Amino acid sequence: MRTIEQKGAYCYTFNRYTEPLARVKPGEEVQLLTEDAYCSLVKSENDDLEYMRKTRTGSNPQIGPIYVEGAEAGDTLAVHILDIQPTRDFAVSSIQNTIGGLTPNKHTPMMTEPLKERIWIYRFDKEGFLRHDDYLRFPWKPFLGTMATAPKLEALSALTPFENGGNMDAPDTKPGNIVYLPVSVDGAYFFTGDCHAAQGEGELCGTALEITAKVKLKFELVKGKTINWPRIESPDEYMTVGSSRPMEDAARIAYMELIALMTEFGWERMDAYQALTQAGKLYCANMVDTNYSMVAKVSKALAQRRKQ
Amino acid sequence: MRTIEQKGAYCYTFNRYTEPLARVKPGEEVQLLTEDAYCSLVKSENDDLEYMRKTRTGSNPQIGPIYVEGAEAGDTLAVHILDIQPTRDFAVSSIQNTIGGLTPNKHTPMMTEPLKERIWIYRFDKEGFLRHDDYLRFPWKPFLGTMATAPKLEALSALTPFENGGNMDAPDTKPGNIVYLPVSVDGAYFFTGDCHAAQGEGELCGTALEITAKVKLKFELVKGKTINWPRIESPDEYMTVGSSRPMEDAARIAYMELIALMTEFGWERMDAYQALTQAGKLYCANMVDTNYSMVAKVSKALAQRRKQ
Amino acid sequence: MRTIEQKGAYCYTFNRYTEPLARVKPGEEVQLLTEDAYCSLVKSENDDLEYMRKTRTGSNPQIGPIYVEGAEAGDTLAVHILDIQPTRDFAVSSIQNTIGGLTPNKHTPMMTEPLKERIWIYRFDKEGFLRHDDYLRFPWKPFLGTMATAPKLEALSALTPFENGGNMDAPDTKPGNIVYLPVSVDGAYFFTGDCHAAQGEGELCGTALEITAKVKLKFELVKGKTINWPRIESPDEYMTVGSSRPMEDAARIAYMELIALMTEFGWERMDAYQALTQAGKLYCANMVDTNYSMVAKVSKALAQRRKQ
Amino acid sequence: MRTIEQKGAYCYTFNRYTEPLARVKPGEEVQLLTEDAYCSLVKSENDDLEYMRKTRTGSNPQIGPIYVEGAEAGDTLAVHILDIQPTRDFAVSSIQNTIGGLTPNKHTPMMTEPLKERIWIYRFDKEGFLRHDDYLRFPWKPFLGTMATAPKLEALSALTPFENGGNMDAPDTKPGNIVYLPVSVDGAYFFTGDCHAAQGEGELCGTALEITAKVKLKFELVKGKTINWPRIESPDEYMTVGSSRPMEDAARIAYMELIALMTEFGWERMDAYQALTQAGKLYCANMVDTNYSMVAKVSKALAQRRKQ
Repeated sequence: MRTIEQKGAYCYTFNRYTEPLARVKPGEEVQLLTEDAYCSLVKSENDDLEYMRKTRTGSNPQIGPIYVEGAEAGDTLAVHILDIQPTRDFAVSSIQNTIGGLTPNKHTPMMTEPLKERIWIYRFDKEGFLRHDDYLRFPWKPFLGTMATAPKLEALSALTPFENGGNMDAPDTKPGNIVYLPVSVDGAYFFTGDCHAAQGEGELCGTALEITAKVKLKFELVKGKTINWPRIESPDEYMTVGSSRPMEDAARIAYMELIALMTEFGWERMDAYQALTQAGKLYCANMVDTNYSMVAKVSKALAQRRKQ
Repeated sequence: MRTIEQKGAYCYTFNRYTEPLARVKPGEEVQLLTEDAYCSLVKSENDDLEYMRKTRTGSNPQIGPIYVEGAEAGDTLAVHILDIQPTRDFAVSSIQNTIGGLTPNKHTPMMTEPLKERIWIYRFDKEGFLRHDDYLRFPWKPFLGTMATAPKLEALSALTPFENGGNMDAPDTKPGNIVYLPVSVDGAYFFTGDCHAAQGEGELCGTALEITAKVKLKFELVKGKTINWPRIESPDEYMTVGSSRPMEDAARIAYMELIALMTEFGWERMDAYQALTQAGKLYCANMVDTNYSMVAKVSKALAQRRKQ
Repeated sequence: MRTIEQKGAYCYTFNRYTEPLARVKPGEEVQLLTEDAYCSLVKSENDDLEYMRKTRTGSNPQIGPIYVEGAEAGDTLAVHILDIQPTRDFAVSSIQNTIGGLTPNKHTPMMTEPLKERIWIYRFDKEGFLRHDDYLRFPWKPFLGTMATAPKLEALSALTPFENGGNMDAPDTKPGNIVYLPVSVDGAYFFTGDCHAAQGEGELCGTALEITAKVKLKFELVKGKTINWPRIESPDEYMTVGSSRPMEDAARIAYMELIALMTEFGWERMDAYQALTQAGKLYCANMVDTNYSMVAKVSKALAQRRKQ
Repeated sequence: MRTIEQKGAYCYTFNRYTEPLARVKPGEEVQLLTEDAYCSLVKSENDDLEYMRKTRTGSNPQIGPIYVEGAEAGDTLAVHILDIQPTRDFAVSSIQNTIGGLTPNKHTPMMTEPLKERIWIYRFDKEGFLRHDDYLRFPWKPFLGTMATAPKLEALSALTPFENGGNMDAPDTKPGNIVYLPVSVDGAYFFTGDCHAAQGEGELCGTALEITAKVKLKFELVKGKTINWPRIESPDEYMTVGSSRPMEDAARIAYMELIALMTEFGWERMDAYQALTQAGKLYCANMVDTNYSMVAKVSKALAQRRKQ
């Protein structure tokens, strides 16, 4: 299996303008090495977060763009997440004054004094858990915080979740699942990064257990099929991801797209609207990024019932 | 076990002013008969929802108030949900133009034409599922849409979720769980109703599988313990419920209260903030009511770790 | 002119259940004595706001309810604000941790340390300005922060702006203007209070220049005319007030009602929608209360053009 | 005075990557020819808006980028709006299903049927008003919907208002006023366009009276002065513009920046917070774009009082 490493600088925006780092064929499996959200500039609890923020070129470095052969605007890119392995023995979390669901920030400023910033370093223990101390210890549940194809015209900050994916921070973009992304430009221009060793729903303080990782992915194309927002397929469920502000708009988008998905299986729109009222799931992936992300779910059994 | 039925009119507000319907002792188990959200005025798919809305006294009739002996302002009321049984053979859902996550409504009005209103009647089938047709068929997963104690001064619409509970529409207020509510007035003045045979997260179109029910509850008091917002305890998890608008404010409240809960187990605040970043859960209970409700969860194992 | 004073306790909710304080006839002019938002418990910059909050029965005391003879549910109450005079020589503002557009609060909690609370006492100077020092000095621009009729069923906190008016904190509810409120119960049950010597748009920190006052009002009825939300008429403009969260929902309501108002003058709905795009005004009355309030405006000249 | 015309394609993003169209010196006055938001593809009320949307390269074409000699990241660009003249005899407004404060759209989707799309063509009449018919007639009050400098890394859609300005749709970016924008990249990379013959606050239906125009601007630099968000200076007032979602976050940003501005004049932060509570203004510039924009204002007299 081919291993793709970033040459030169990582990408700090999702864009079609950067020269592709590599080209992959539909059906091909590759291995990518991802950088962590701090650009690997935080390694000790005594490091200075303000210095890190001023030193790095940008936030949330991404590997890419990966050019997918044969992908055309209007297609859908299916990314199978096969495996995630850590490439160092620690993960980093922190309280920063620039981000956080319960921290005043650029979008929701307050007159209060800033929080005292703080770093937590977690190391893998014998059971493979991430351990800071006897109390702060979490199982290894890795996923990719960021997966995106390039927008049609924009170059969007790698901190942004949007209609082509991006920084969704959805724990369901994990090994065993397939992530479907809209293709807006020929070649798709895929980016990924921001691997988390574990993360709760909402990514509450703004930084999960941030790691560098080796990620195995398989790319496939669904030719001629257009979707408007990302979808995730697990063995048992179909999911849609909506990213916007306020959070209810993200929820509206996610459920609207899930209704659209159900109509592809033969459901009438109002029946699907009512069915999801009784059996949909809806969790918050992130409440900290430039857009909030909500994930709506339906069981495959229910979605496919019309076609049985 | 004593059965409590509403005498005279059901209640359409959560309030301390209505004469208590019954008095219960801490530790006592009682059975309550709840009315459905339509005041049982919808029984056929040909009924007129506009007529129903104009005919009924109010929305979301509640049984109560139940006076809990010994409850004083500042205490916490613990309500054990022991059992829920249907008292009729059908459940009702509908699309109404007055409510819905994807329906323009009083709070989020739009210039578009109203939706065509529609009713779905579900009946229990042999396997005990709620069945409309071969496709619309859902398992029996009953819970109480509404559980509240009276506000200190206000009389709030039974459509409202708020700091003393109310119309949270959280699928976790179900048999086997304990719901903790702040007590704002002596006697607590407990109300419940709006039983759902099943509901997805968000209650998307605004009406779940609405039923009348017989509900077994046990009331207990936590004397001298004050909580600010509702909590739910399942065998494995602690939950907090925040209700506000926009949805991110409901999420903020839920997680802030979950941090407060963890500090009661010995957690330092910033550690709890960071721990929930890695391991909290956060789902949308309702995206349709006068406030949106978000439920934040932490495993008991994690919350209690500091005290082990 | 009759002077109405509160007998016994002021009201802390808008409700139909409290015994009317007085009865007025349509066309009648009366004088009301209003209490300030602090229940007159803050008189010095050394007072303790926490003590004040714990001591008072409720927030934002209201005089009322005033029963308007002949008012029936479905009518509109027109309240002419004739005059406002201060009844003491000072006004009070403060920074409190319980409220504020840039202060974490119950609805938008944050993990930061609370602000240091602070009181500012302003006194009338020779020019009739409210003066704290050489820099903090503002002209006398009084208005009524709160004007409401009772809800149909609820008893709502006097801190709440809602469809029958309430704590809108709109600087346009001032002498010379007419405020139109929906009548939901027979007799209307009018409440007012929370007089401000001056206030900017948004009431940013949560407390304006709070005063006690003598207010001259004239009540009139528009029989058989039903409005959904408050309206304000100045010599030159028609206004509508929407109160909700998030703020864009308040804005949607305000403009939706202004379109409705224009259709009463013969405008086609889509023409009115487009006309307000070119010539409507939209300011924020409050960004601090339990709902946010937005005021939309159209010139009378434009609104009435269809009827000329 | 030099006239700058777009050569080749207009810009559809605010970015630093496009080759500068022209270079200007601080103090220089230039004339720019701006395209309308429809790329001049709508000229008749019978045109097809869906065809227009599919045909054009992008939304909201911008002239630029203009390289400002001597501008360095961290400086502030001052743009004096000297004059705006129409370059054709008509303006266009429309109802589109892709945008609108009371129209379901990409961000706030609904299950309702789309609105019937519609175009209004306005022509200048003898008095210089924009006239559609006897009722739809508005005075000439031109301003630039869009003014921006390039972001540090991103290329943002010309539909987006953000911290460097952009599609703010603020009626105060008009002749006689000065607009201050943060400089994030050397040369500033200035863009403008989206001229409106008139617009109400909120740009309710999403398209104002759209025109092509000749715009006279003068560029100046404030070396070494860093601002975080746009400011506007009129003869009597200082303004700040916040753009975000939900709308209350835009309001928070605007007022936070206005407090920052006042501290530059010697105000203590909490005094400024309180002073704006009594005397600030806060209106909605747009409630339709990808971010909502709010404009906060303070009189120069008040802001400068500390320095007198």
